[in-house]
Amino acid sequence: MQMAMVGLGKMGANMTTRLLKGGHQIVVTDLNAAAVEKSVGEGAVGAQDYDELVARLETPRTVWVMVPSGKVTESVVTALAERLSPGDTIIDGGNSNYKDTMRRGATLAEKGLHFVDVGTSGGIWGITEGYSMMIGGEKEAVERLRPIFETLAPAPDKGWGHVGPRGSGHFVKMIHNGIEYGMMQAFAEGFEIFREKKEFGLDLHQIAEIWQHGSVVRSWLLDLTVRALEDDQNLTDIAPFVPDSGEGRWTVFEAVDLDVPAPVLTLALQMRFVSRQDERYAARLLSALRNQFGGHAVKKVG
Amino acid sequence: MQMAMVGLGKMGANMTTRLLKGGHQIVVTDLNAAAVEKSVGEGAVGAQDYDELVARLETPRTVWVMVPSGKVTESVVTALAERLSPGDTIIDGGNSNYKDTMRRGATLAEKGLHFVDVGTSGGIWGITEGYSMMIGGEKEAVERLRPIFETLAPAPDKGWGHVGPRGSGHFVKMIHNGIEYGMMQAFAEGFEIFREKKEFGLDLHQIAEIWQHGSVVRSWLLDLTVRALEDDQNLTDIAPFVPDSGEGRWTVFEAVDLDVPAPVLTLALQMRFVSRQDERYAARLLSALRNQFGGHAVKKVG
Repeated sequence: MQMAMVGLGKMGANMTTRLLKGGHQIVVTDLNAAAVEKSVGEGAVGAQDYDELVARLETPRTVWVMVPSGKVTESVVTALAERLSPGDTIIDGGNSNYKDTMRRGATLAEKGLHFVDVGTSGGIWGITEGYSMMIGGEKEAVERLRPIFETLAPAPDKGWGHVGPRGSGHFVKMIHNGIEYGMMQAFAEGFEIFREKKEFGLDLHQIAEIWQHGSVVRSWLLDLTVRALEDDQNLTDIAPFVPDSGEGRWTVFEAVDLDVPAPVLTLALQMRFVSRQDERYAARLLSALRNQFGGHAVKKVG
Repeated sequence: MQMAMVGLGKMGANMTTRLLKGGHQIVVTDLNAAAVEKSVGEGAVGAQDYDELVARLETPRTVWVMVPSGKVTESVVTALAERLSPGDTIIDGGNSNYKDTMRRGATLAEKGLHFVDVGTSGGIWGITEGYSMMIGGEKEAVERLRPIFETLAPAPDKGWGHVGPRGSGHFVKMIHNGIEYGMMQAFAEGFEIFREKKEFGLDLHQIAEIWQHGSVVRSWLLDLTVRALEDDQNLTDIAPFVPDSGEGRWTVFEAVDLDVPAPVLTLALQMRFVSRQDERYAARLLSALRNQFGGHAVKKVG
C-alpha cells in the first residue's frame, strides 16, 4: 500500500528499505537531503517538505513518524495534523512516552485523524530479521495498516499484534525496554564475575558461545554478547558509560505509580546512573563518614 | 563409547536415553529399581549396586554421576572412588558447589582417578534439544569423553566446551544460574506491571508471543513464558512461592568474595526469599515503626 515515512534515521531508513522491497509505495522526507536521496535511489518518492509529502499521498493518507521522542515527535505530529484531512492516519513508531501518545491521540481524534502507536523493537537488525511491533489504537485504523505490519514484521503472522487502545503499544514497548535493562544487567554482572575469577583463566567469549545452544539463558542478547566479546573480551576501547533513552526510567515511574515492586528493573536503571558518574559524591561521603566514626583511613585523591 | 550413569532422576534418565539413541553403551544404577528397569527397556545394562556397575565396565572406566548435589554426591563419589582403579574417570554432572568439586578432584587425583565436572543446562528439554555443557578438568580426561559430549550436546560442535581446570565447569554453571535468576526476575516484574495496568486490558500471553519474533528480549525464557501464560494468565493454581537450589546464592557469595558488584543477581535471589515468607516480620516491624514515630494507622491482622 501507499504510505509516507517521516524521518530517515537508522530506524526509518531501514524500515523504508524493507517496505520498498515488500512492494509498498513509500513517500519519504527528512531534514537530511542525503538520506532522502538514498531512499529515492531505492525506489521511494522524495518530498521536500510536509506540504509536498501530503500532496503526494492518496486519501485516506498514512504517515509513519519515526523521529526522536519528545519535542521532535511533538512538532512533527503537530505539523502533520495541520495538513492532513479527517480519515487520515498518523503512526508514531518511535519510543514516545505512552502518556504523550494518549494526549496526542485525543487531540488528533478531535480533528477526525487516527493516531496509531507502534512500539518497535529490533534495532539495526530489523532490516533483515524484521521488526517486533506492539501496536495500540482503534481496531479499524490498525486493521487498515495490516499490509504494512505484515511486511515489517519477521513474518506476516509473527512478531506483531494489536495489543490495546491508543497508548498501549508504547506502554508495552516501554516495559519491554525495562525488562531488557534487567536482562542486560544480569549478563553484565555474571560476565564481570567470570573476568575477576582469575584462577580459572576463563575465556568469556567461549562461555557465551557454549550457552547459545541448549542453555537456559540462550537469547538474542546472549548472541549479541558473543559478538561483543569476539575481538577483545577486555573491551579496552569501550568506556564504562551507559546512557539510557527514557523507557527504562518510565518503567520505574510506572512501577511506582502502580505500587508494583520492580527492584531488579529499578536497580538495572540505577546501575546505568552509577556508570555515568564522574564525581561519585556518595562514595566520597561514605568514605568520609567511615573516617568520622571509626577513624578508618581515607583514600586521598591523586 | 561405554559409560555408566549413576542416578536416573529426570536428568540422568533423559541423558541416558539420549546417549543410548546415540549408539553408546550405558550401564545404569539407581536406588529406584523401576527407573533402572525403564532404562534397561531402552537398551541400557542394569546394575544392582556399585560393585556390579564397576565390574560391568571395561577399563579405563567412565562413570557419570547425576545425583543431588551435597551429601548425596559426596557419598556416591566416595563409594565409587573406593571401587575404581587408577586411570578411571568420575564425571559429576550435577549442580555441585565448585569448591566441593575442587576438593573432591584433589582427593581422587591422589588415587590416580580423573574427576571431570560438567555444568549441565537444559532441564527437561535436553532430551530432545540437547544439553549445554560447561566442562572443567584435565584436558586429556575431557578429550577422551568427547564422543559422550558430542551426543549429549545440541550438535556435536555446539553447546559444549572445556572451559578450564577442575571446578571451572561447575563455576561457570553456577554463574549461568545466577544470570538466569536475574533474567527471570526481570520478566516477572515486567509482566506484573502489565497485569496491574488494568486500563489497557492487556493480553499477557499475546505480548509474550509478539516478542518471540524480532524483539530484543527474545529468548528461551520468553518462549517458556509464552507456555506458562497459555492456559491461565492469572496463574491462579500456582502459589507465589519460589524455591532456589543453591547456585543463585553461591553466585552472590562469589560476588562478595571477589568484591564484584552484582546488585541485580543479588536482588533476584532475595526476591525469592521474599516470596517464601509466611510471617513477613520485617514488614510488620516497618508498620509498627511508622506508628511509633508518626502515629500512622497500623493495619491489624485478621
